[in-house]
Amino acid sequence: MRDAQATRARLLAAASQEFTDHGIAGARVDRIAHNAEASKALLYNYFGNKDELFDAVFDAHVLANLDRVPLTAHDLSGYVVRLYDAYLDDPALVRLVTWKRLERTPTGNLFGPLGRHDVANLAAIAEAQAAGVVVDDVEPGGIWAMLIALAATWAQASIVHTADTREPRADHQRRRRALDRTVRRAFCVSAAD
Amino acid sequence: MRDAQATRARLLAAASQEFTDHGIAGARVDRIAHNAEASKALLYNYFGNKDELFDAVFDAHVLANLDRVPLTAHDLSGYVVRLYDAYLDDPALVRLVTWKRLERTPTGNLFGPLGRHDVANLAAIAEAQAAGVVVDDVEPGGIWAMLIALAATWAQASIVHTADTREPRADHQRRRRALDRTVRRAFCVSAAD
Repeated sequence: MRDAQATRARLLAAASQEFTDHGIAGARVDRIAHNAEASKALLYNYFGNKDELFDAVFDAHVLANLDRVPLTAHDLSGYVVRLYDAYLDDPALVRLVTWKRLERTPTGNLFGPLGRHDVANLAAIAEAQAAGVVVDDVEPGGIWAMLIALAATWAQASIVHTADTREPRADHQRRRRALDRTVRRAFCVSAAD
Repeated sequence: MRDAQATRARLLAAASQEFTDHGIAGARVDRIAHNAEASKALLYNYFGNKDELFDAVFDAHVLANLDRVPLTAHDLSGYVVRLYDAYLDDPALVRLVTWKRLERTPTGNLFGPLGRHDVANLAAIAEAQAAGVVVDDVEPGGIWAMLIALAATWAQASIVHTADTREPRADHQRRRRALDRTVRRAFCVSAAD
């Protein structure tokens, strides 16, 4: 039983790496089984087909990390900077989400109907608007989407430049400062107003 | 000769659709040849292998469209709204760019060393900063990357929501307004300052 759990965990880890690197169409079940030192038969037995294996990876890696950086609606610039760091620390996260977008969900909400996660975040932004801390001429959903887009400016799906931990520390500091200033100006009502 | 050009154009169009839908690993050369009503031998003869065919599609569809929405550094919010519309009008563009990012260029600049295109855009932003029209406490490269990220908030690689022309007109209008207000506040120095 313990052996089965260990094998399952190795398969999931190998699949996570394979899908991160190659996407769903590009992933090879042979390679996953080989890298997990398990048989393909066992893989199919535990996870079903390749699509279901991707779902398992997505649940384990993405859904489990949705609240890794909790939204701080009264400190939106801090939130966006922390999200920049989270994307930098875990290069798999945005890649897995983007493969799902490109290969599974070409339009609409990526995570399907709004889940509790989104509802709570939008409510927190609306509360900060009512408190006069966040601008109120853009609806919470728009602010939320733009905050994520800004945090991901240099993330793994960037169509300009993808940051990477091997770059000089000063590059990351410059981007954090740029995000901090931009989010403050765009969304935060300053005490002086 | 005219036939050869027509066949080449059909192959390129079919390949563009195939790579847009399925990416590089997911694209099937058989399907491209079939949809172009041409033989695989002819496809290989004209374009080389699948990777070279992707390069030809990328050059024809993406590089040829880089200046479709010219940067207006003295009207950054107008620029971002026009880019939102361009991404909405051509769903292939961001998908092709994002496949390249995920499958070919995991980190760094997507388009390689800065080309003339980028150099001109960064110079235009620097000029607008010197003219006092654009904030000057964020460097031009940072502003440029964040403008693209904001314009792509609801584009084909969005990790939140991808817009689509079948949505009600009011949804698009609301997003354009949100982008306009956000970009003005974040980057533009108002006449009153």
